[in-house]
Amino acid sequence: MTRNKEKLIEEFNELIKSNTEKLLKHKVKELHPADLVEILEALEEEKVKKIIDLISTEKLADILAEADYETEHKLLKFLSNIRLTKVLDAMYSDDITDLLGALSIGQAKALLKLIKEEEAELIQQLLGYDEESAGGIMTTEYIAMKEEKSVKEAIQKLRDIAPDAEMIYYIYVINERKEMVGVLSMRELISASPDKQVKDLMNQKVITVDVNLDQEEVAKIISKYDLLSVPVVNQQGLLLGIITVDDIIDVIEEEATEDMYKMAGTSELGLTEESNIVLSGIIKRLPWLLILLFGDLLSGTVIRNFEGALESVVALAFFIPVLMDMGGNVGTQSLTMVVRGLATGDLSERNIKAHLFNEIKVGLILATILGSLIALIALVWQGNPMLGLVVGMAMFCTLITAVIGGTAIPFIIDSLGADPAVAAGPFITTLIDVSGLFIYFTLATIFLQRLM
Amino acid sequence: MTRNKEKLIEEFNELIKSNTEKLLKHKVKELHPADLVEILEALEEEKVKKIIDLISTEKLADILAEADYETEHKLLKFLSNIRLTKVLDAMYSDDITDLLGALSIGQAKALLKLIKEEEAELIQQLLGYDEESAGGIMTTEYIAMKEEKSVKEAIQKLRDIAPDAEMIYYIYVINERKEMVGVLSMRELISASPDKQVKDLMNQKVITVDVNLDQEEVAKIISKYDLLSVPVVNQQGLLLGIITVDDIIDVIEEEATEDMYKMAGTSELGLTEESNIVLSGIIKRLPWLLILLFGDLLSGTVIRNFEGALESVVALAFFIPVLMDMGGNVGTQSLTMVVRGLATGDLSERNIKAHLFNEIKVGLILATILGSLIALIALVWQGNPMLGLVVGMAMFCTLITAVIGGTAIPFIIDSLGADPAVAAGPFITTLIDVSGLFIYFTLATIFLQRLM
Repeated sequence: MTRNKEKLIEEFNELIKSNTEKLLKHKVKELHPADLVEILEALEEEKVKKIIDLISTEKLADILAEADYETEHKLLKFLSNIRLTKVLDAMYSDDITDLLGALSIGQAKALLKLIKEEEAELIQQLLGYDEESAGGIMTTEYIAMKEEKSVKEAIQKLRDIAPDAEMIYYIYVINERKEMVGVLSMRELISASPDKQVKDLMNQKVITVDVNLDQEEVAKIISKYDLLSVPVVNQQGLLLGIITVDDIIDVIEEEATEDMYKMAGTSELGLTEESNIVLSGIIKRLPWLLILLFGDLLSGTVIRNFEGALESVVALAFFIPVLMDMGGNVGTQSLTMVVRGLATGDLSERNIKAHLFNEIKVGLILATILGSLIALIALVWQGNPMLGLVVGMAMFCTLITAVIGGTAIPFIIDSLGADPAVAAGPFITTLIDVSGLFIYFTLATIFLQRLM
Repeated sequence: MTRNKEKLIEEFNELIKSNTEKLLKHKVKELHPADLVEILEALEEEKVKKIIDLISTEKLADILAEADYETEHKLLKFLSNIRLTKVLDAMYSDDITDLLGALSIGQAKALLKLIKEEEAELIQQLLGYDEESAGGIMTTEYIAMKEEKSVKEAIQKLRDIAPDAEMIYYIYVINERKEMVGVLSMRELISASPDKQVKDLMNQKVITVDVNLDQEEVAKIISKYDLLSVPVVNQQGLLLGIITVDDIIDVIEEEATEDMYKMAGTSELGLTEESNIVLSGIIKRLPWLLILLFGDLLSGTVIRNFEGALESVVALAFFIPVLMDMGGNVGTQSLTMVVRGLATGDLSERNIKAHLFNEIKVGLILATILGSLIALIALVWQGNPMLGLVVGMAMFCTLITAVIGGTAIPFIIDSLGADPAVAAGPFITTLIDVSGLFIYFTLATIFLQRLM
């Protein structure tokens, strides 16, 4: 597919250069909006200008919904107000909300003026929800019906509103007060006899999410129950909107990316936003690095406090890297299991104790094997049995610390209500470094006389 | 939701203990299969035995499709062959294939005997595909029609087969040779006039995936085009099955988990498979750790080769941790951007050069800031300007190496066709350690006379 994308972009570059509008128009018509998005993201501004008028309103609505911020800005620049009004009219409310989020307040206000008053009010309400909550990602183009409708009437209503709804395969059933009372899938509806009533067919146990629920939790629910969409309700149980599975896929990818960046000790780094990418890269990475720098100086301080031991036996320095790195590696492995386990729901308060217990067993065995091995290596390498003993014991203690710290710390952070991914590889590593070096040099001092 | 889950498990434990079958039966009937899965996963064997007969065949089919390996084994143990035959009949082919994959060859053969011959043959075919390919995750319960059907006939056919198909919202249109010729959504079908023909309505540009395509690529396609399912074809364009969006959500989560574990330098670790969890933890972690141990000893060798310098100026050792860790941190940040960018498709051959160029710019600025800072700290701390200069220059060079290595190495590995996540944090870190220490001690040796 990537090859295909590169080829398409090249083809477009050629077509634009040779000014063959007819061929270009045909190509634009033929392509799926998702492919056009990729091409528009790659093309320079003046080239985008040349094709934007060839794209149909419907397609442009889909493109604006999918494109990254930078491309949205590129596109908006070349759209007249008349055209933009039509495009906005063809967009779903959640996508308009996202688009507005990418603009300056002035631009957003100008855009809102182009939208029908009723719709604009709705969008301002949507903008009020936290961007990462159910309310922030829901759309209002769902299908809701009263329970008294017959199957025949329901199908007729579906036929009428299908073109405007984002998800037509679940029909949400509401009462006069707009409270959710049931759900009916199109699959059930189409198989039912035409004169049955919606209320006879509907499932009264509807899985809903609260409008303020975090998007990560919404994703877990859609994933757990294999839903195509989930209705969003407020505290009174009133239906406010729906969240569709395609948006949830984006959430799952986003959250996994976020966790990985946090574990690498940095805020999420944009790859596609070109403007000031260098500056934003520095702003996002430097603060963490500065904190870590001072953490690492603590390790240096530990070594400095044992300067005497090191001066007597310089060979102690040879094993600093292996102790530090192995502690970091084992700790990161334990940490990754907890962070990922908490994110996927495989780990919870119920089984964390059993998990910690297993980790300690694994840690004891790993620490014994690796500790003995490094002791043997130190003995053979330096011909000093006492140095071997010190290095081996230090490795053993460091790895046990790493397993316990790597498992317990992110879990404690999580149960305090903070994000465990922030406990992050580098921080745990620094912690393990400091304690590992302290153990190492303390042992060396105790056995020092025999070492010399 | 997690609170809710703990409460449900407790409630079940109570109900089973007090032997109130009627209440238990009501509770089982009321719960969604996905909730029952969680409860069955948490309950002990003898308790599972007590509720298994209360679960309906349909629900049991859904449960077997969703449960983890261990729970599947628990459940199969208590199902009679007669009951199991009924349950298997209610399962989709992809779920049966997954279930068989969890069993020993003997068990799988016994199970296949319970399935209708026709279906069993099909499942054996499915078992032939790579588990992580499109063929390995597809199901054969799709809806296909000939293009000559009228809308009315098509809807009638849908009504008849809806209960048996896994996904009924896309209708795939095939010709006599079973080649895919188009696709029609239920949305389009239901809005169309009844006497129109399928071929007039269908979209001829069908997005398909090859049966051997990697599941990660299938996920990218479903995600890019916002599909509810994608048809799987062979090289001749014959329709073999479909992959549904709920299975793709599992793939996306699985692949993100896999990448995280690889980056932590370990194979994926099972959290839920209880048997031999300690042994499997060791088998999966030890090989990587051994390789890394020897890598780290290289760092030790570098220090050993500069023993003379270290003996003259023991203070050089104080800065070993900060140089090693900062190199590792910056390298891991760069690496994470590339691994995640390649996984989500944000990075490709087209923009990797621009990305590397940006990374170098960011790296130069970070290296200058952090290098100057550590030089200043070394000067103040040790009162030795020359030591400050050496540490600062070493930090600068190490960070530049880290940025370039962290960006280029995973990309090179990817373009060689291997998995860039295997380039992994620990490996890059070890590489940066060795080169960083070499630079540090080389600089120290050059400036040594002035250091003493």
